[in-house]
Amino acid sequence: MRVTGKNVFNELDIKNIRRVYLSNNFKDKNIIDFIQKNNIKYVLSEQKVLDNMLKNNQGIIIDINDYEYKNIDIIDDNFVIILDHLEDPHNFGAIIRTAESMGIKNIIIPKDRSVVVNETVMKCSAGTLNHVNIIQVVNLVNAINYLKERGFFIYGAEADGLNYKSVNYSEKRCLVVGSEGKGISHIVRKNCDEIISLPMRGHINSLNASVAAAILIYEMGD
Amino acid sequence: MRVTGKNVFNELDIKNIRRVYLSNNFKDKNIIDFIQKNNIKYVLSEQKVLDNMLKNNQGIIIDINDYEYKNIDIIDDNFVIILDHLEDPHNFGAIIRTAESMGIKNIIIPKDRSVVVNETVMKCSAGTLNHVNIIQVVNLVNAINYLKERGFFIYGAEADGLNYKSVNYSEKRCLVVGSEGKGISHIVRKNCDEIISLPMRGHINSLNASVAAAILIYEMGD
Repeated sequence: MRVTGKNVFNELDIKNIRRVYLSNNFKDKNIIDFIQKNNIKYVLSEQKVLDNMLKNNQGIIIDINDYEYKNIDIIDDNFVIILDHLEDPHNFGAIIRTAESMGIKNIIIPKDRSVVVNETVMKCSAGTLNHVNIIQVVNLVNAINYLKERGFFIYGAEADGLNYKSVNYSEKRCLVVGSEGKGISHIVRKNCDEIISLPMRGHINSLNASVAAAILIYEMGD
Repeated sequence: MRVTGKNVFNELDIKNIRRVYLSNNFKDKNIIDFIQKNNIKYVLSEQKVLDNMLKNNQGIIIDINDYEYKNIDIIDDNFVIILDHLEDPHNFGAIIRTAESMGIKNIIIPKDRSVVVNETVMKCSAGTLNHVNIIQVVNLVNAINYLKERGFFIYGAEADGLNYKSVNYSEKRCLVVGSEGKGISHIVRKNCDEIISLPMRGHINSLNASVAAAILIYEMGD
């Protein structure tokens, strides 16, 4: 997988870097020193060669190992997020970034019909992916049951639930965020312990998925 | 100004529509009926003609009047947002959308070195722009003083203030959001009554501007 950006580079785990492509014009001395000091393979090329590989590259493209999804048994803390078939990688990256800001370490996604970790996610997560485990599971209901068995209370975010501020959140909590178009799937919803909602006081009846997730993450995490 | 999208069309004020360009393939019967019933000027063209005008157009492009900024004396409610030299139209549109969801009616921006209302903002605001006044002012400090004289308390969002949840917000409140890169400008900050902050519990020390604004808007508006 190829990613770009100085901030992304600075947050990468060095062992995942296969090779770096630098433009002849690339000037960031800290990054160049870091690459040379750590014996990271790199190639100097003309800017136009980089532009053909990946647009908006800031003069640096990094070839990294594909993301290694984690297993659910890595969870050892009290606030987990499930993304129920989220579709937009920008939203996925934004949610990872917000979650990391709240110190959340684990996000669960399903294996099929879902966002995956790609270069857009890497970029939108602003380097936070290194600090958050993305757990891929075959079956979300099984994942929910796994969490329930370990004392988690499952909160689904949908339009017709309790006001999110009126809830006394359980110490071990899991927030389920639905897909952009369809919300939470029927079967997952049936397995939630509580449905929580954001008030909508205007004319338009929806928030962007990553914005809604952020408001809930900060309320539930604080 | 040319905008696109069915949702955007459905939220437009009819008196601002100059002309609609429809693709020959455009199938939304409700929109076609609405255009014909209201005698809106329209042109049928091949899809590729529309694609040359504006990408990702869903088969409909609407030529509308440029946005008419409002004057500060339009404010007649208790929660106002100031965007201090925000730069990214995606963030601007997202903030308009979130603000509208909280029933906020007025957003103040400066005239120079700031986002303006353009087609990206229209699109990212998801049709909410029709319900929110964008007030353009020459001088933000004068705008702040105008609000203070009318009993508003000015809350600036920066990294080193009071925890946003610990504040007992004044009934008349104004949230100041800084620019993506530089935050709130020195002179505006000096004129804020209180600086409020979001906790950052992870490794990365910043949230996206529209995400941070959303969390604060929902806390302060609720």
